[in-house]
Amino acid sequence: MNETAEFGRAAVDWIDRLAAVSEPGPGVTRMPFSDEHRRVLPLVQEMMEDAGLSVSMDAAGTLIGRRKGPAGAPVLLLGSHQDSVRQGGAYDGAMGVVLPALALKAIRGEELPFAIELLCFADEEGARFPTALMGPRALAGTFDMASLELKDPDGISLRRAMTDFGLEPEELPGLKRDPAGIIGWIECHIEQGPVLEAEGEALGVVTAICGIERHAVRLTGQAAHAGTVPMALRRDTLAGAAELVAAVEARARGTDGLLATVGALRVQPGVVNAVPGAVDMTVEIRAPEDAVREAAGTALTDAARRIADARGLEVEMTRTYAQAATPCDAGLQDALEAAIRASGGEGRRLASGATHDSSAMADLCPVAMMFLACRDGVSHNPAEYCPPEVMGQAVAAYTTLLSRMGAEGR
Amino acid sequence: MNETAEFGRAAVDWIDRLAAVSEPGPGVTRMPFSDEHRRVLPLVQEMMEDAGLSVSMDAAGTLIGRRKGPAGAPVLLLGSHQDSVRQGGAYDGAMGVVLPALALKAIRGEELPFAIELLCFADEEGARFPTALMGPRALAGTFDMASLELKDPDGISLRRAMTDFGLEPEELPGLKRDPAGIIGWIECHIEQGPVLEAEGEALGVVTAICGIERHAVRLTGQAAHAGTVPMALRRDTLAGAAELVAAVEARARGTDGLLATVGALRVQPGVVNAVPGAVDMTVEIRAPEDAVREAAGTALTDAARRIADARGLEVEMTRTYAQAATPCDAGLQDALEAAIRASGGEGRRLASGATHDSSAMADLCPVAMMFLACRDGVSHNPAEYCPPEVMGQAVAAYTTLLSRMGAEGR
Repeated sequence: MNETAEFGRAAVDWIDRLAAVSEPGPGVTRMPFSDEHRRVLPLVQEMMEDAGLSVSMDAAGTLIGRRKGPAGAPVLLLGSHQDSVRQGGAYDGAMGVVLPALALKAIRGEELPFAIELLCFADEEGARFPTALMGPRALAGTFDMASLELKDPDGISLRRAMTDFGLEPEELPGLKRDPAGIIGWIECHIEQGPVLEAEGEALGVVTAICGIERHAVRLTGQAAHAGTVPMALRRDTLAGAAELVAAVEARARGTDGLLATVGALRVQPGVVNAVPGAVDMTVEIRAPEDAVREAAGTALTDAARRIADARGLEVEMTRTYAQAATPCDAGLQDALEAAIRASGGEGRRLASGATHDSSAMADLCPVAMMFLACRDGVSHNPAEYCPPEVMGQAVAAYTTLLSRMGAEGR
Repeated sequence: MNETAEFGRAAVDWIDRLAAVSEPGPGVTRMPFSDEHRRVLPLVQEMMEDAGLSVSMDAAGTLIGRRKGPAGAPVLLLGSHQDSVRQGGAYDGAMGVVLPALALKAIRGEELPFAIELLCFADEEGARFPTALMGPRALAGTFDMASLELKDPDGISLRRAMTDFGLEPEELPGLKRDPAGIIGWIECHIEQGPVLEAEGEALGVVTAICGIERHAVRLTGQAAHAGTVPMALRRDTLAGAAELVAAVEARARGTDGLLATVGALRVQPGVVNAVPGAVDMTVEIRAPEDAVREAAGTALTDAARRIADARGLEVEMTRTYAQAATPCDAGLQDALEAAIRASGGEGRRLASGATHDSSAMADLCPVAMMFLACRDGVSHNPAEYCPPEVMGQAVAAYTTLLSRMGAEGR
C-alpha cells in the first residue's frame, strides 16, 4: 500500500531526527528537563504544527498539540513520552508521539466531532529522578507534590530542575482535568517483547497493563564444609532456593497470562567447597488480572514455607512492592482492533507487562494502547528497532480509528 | 575410667597452651613460618620431651620427636600439623600432635619392637602460601621445589619465609624417606563434620580420604524484560541452573558415600525485573572411591547438557580440578578399630571429605586416621570444640593401639 509505505518513511525521518538529540554515547539518552529535552522540543513542535496542531506546554513540561473541535465538544487524548532510559532506543516513547502526529497530518482536512490533544510527556522512565509519570499524574490529579523534593544523582531536586527549565511547579495542581470532557487516552508503543514478532503480526491491542508484585525471600540454613557434612545432615539453602525457582516457573507456566521471575539470587558464603548457608532472592509476579497475581503470590509464599519446612530451613518472604493492574477500555480495544483489521492485521490482543503513561492516565479516563512489533523483543537498548512498514501500518490504523470515531460521533 | 579422664584433662591443658600462641583476634591464627609458629615450637618440644622423645627439626620445618627402637627396627610415624586457618579452632592439627604425645608419655616405660616418630608439620592448611603439605611431601619425595617461589599475600616467597625461619630449603630433597623402613603413618584429627556426634560415637576410623573434583559451569541464555517476555519464549538461565542444582543433590542423595555440592552461583544481570541471561556456578563432587566420583562427574555433565538443550541454553561445563582418593590401609584400620573397641567405642568407619597430611603421607607408606567427634560438626572456626572425654578416649585408644602393635611385633 503506497500510503502506508509513505507513512513508514515519514515515521523513520522523524524518529531519526528526534533520536539525534541525545547525550553522547550509544543509543538515545534524553533525560527529562535536560539540555537534550530542551533541544528536542522545537522538533516536536515543528512536527505537531506540521499536523496542524496549536502547540503549548503545561506546567508539568508536557508539550501539547491541540486540534480544535466543535464548541463544547469533548477531547480525545493521544501521545506518549519524550524521555529515554540511559543508552536506550529511538522508539520507546518518541514513536508514540510521531505516529499519531503523522495520522493527524493525514486527516488534517477531515471534520471530527471532537477535539484532539497530542501529548508529549516529559518523564515516563524515571531514569533521572526516583519518580516518574508526572505529566499524566498531574492531569489525573494524582501527582504527589512531595515528589518535587526528590533529587537526581547530581543532587538537583525535581523542583529545581523544573524551575530551571522555565516551569512553575506550583501550578501543577491546577493541571487536573475534568474527566467529564475527556473521551479517552490512546497510546501507541513499541511492544518491548517478542510476542507480535513471533506471530508475524505488526500491531497488537493491549488488554491491560499488568499489575506487579515483588517479594524478597531470604532462606537461612547452615553453612558447612562440602567435604565433611553428609547429604542427609545438610541444611542447604541453595538446594531449597532451586526448588523455589522451579515452583515459580511452574506456577507461571501453568497459569494463563501470569509471568513470574526469579531475577536476583545471591548465595552466602558462595564458595566452591561450602554448602550455602543463606540465599537472598527475589520473586516478581505480573498478571493482567490482580486476582491471578495475588493468588500466585499467596501460593508461592506457601510453597516457600513448605520447601523450607521440609529442609529444616528458615524462610522470610516479604512482599516489597505491589501495583494493581490497569485494564484497558473494552470499547476502545474493539475500535483499535477494527482499525488494525482494516489496515490488514489481526488485532492480536495481548497484555502489557511493562508500565506506561497509560497506567497513570487510567486514573483520569478510559485508556487504550496499540503495540508495535519490535525486532527480537529488544528495548531499553541501542539495538531497539521497529520496522518502517510496522510504523506505516500503525499510522494507517490511527487514521482509520480517528475517522471512524468521528463518523460514529464518538 | 579414671585414666581416660586424666588423659582428657592433660589434653585440654596442652590444647589451651598451644591455642594461646596465636595472632590477635577470635580463635587461633597460626601461619607457617610466622612469629607464632616460632613461639609455639618450644611448647611442642616441651610436650614431646615430657613424653621422652628426642626433638629435632627437619628442613621442611617439621618438628620431630623420636623414640628409639631396637637397632635396625622400622619406624612408626604419628602426628599432624601445627598451623591453622585464619581465625580457626584450637583442635584442627594441634590435637593430632597432643594426643599421641600423651599416649607416648603413658607408655614411656614399655618396650616396643619399633621406633616411633611424632611429627608436627609446619603447613597443612595452605592458609599463607598457595601450596600446602610441604612437610609430608618432602618425606614422600613429592614436593615440587618450584613451590618455593610462591608468595604469601605480603609478597614474601615460601623460600624467603623458610630461610628467615632458619631453614635451608635446598636440603628439602634430602628429606625423602625410604619406605622400606616405615611401618606406616597414623594421624588423629577432629572430624570437622557431624557424623560421629550424631551417632553418639566419640571416635571413628577413616576408610579413605575422598577424591575431589570441581567443575565450573556457565549457562548462557537471553537476558530479557521480566514483564514483556512470555514464559514460553524465555531462555531463563537461572531456571536451568535450578534444575542442575536439583540434579546434583539428587545424584549425591542416591549414591552411597557421594557428596555433591553447588557452593557458588552468580546470576547476570541479577536484578528483580530481568530474566537472567547468564549463570556461573560450581559443582564439587567428593567420594571415597574414584570410580563413583568420576561416574557422578560424567552423569552431571550429561545432565547439564540435557537441561540446556531442553531450554535452548548454551552450557559450558569444565572440570577445573581433580584429586584422587586416598584409601586408608586395611590392616591399620582394623588395628585402630580394635583399639577403639577396647576403649569402649564402636570403631565406626567413615570417609574423610577433607584433605589431611595423611593424603600426602600415603605416597610414602600405609596411612590410617582416627577421627574425633566435634561439637555441631563445626571446624575452621573459633567455635570448634572437641570434648575432653572424647580426647581422653582417643589417648587411651592410642596407648592400646601402640601396646598391641608392640605385642604383635609389628
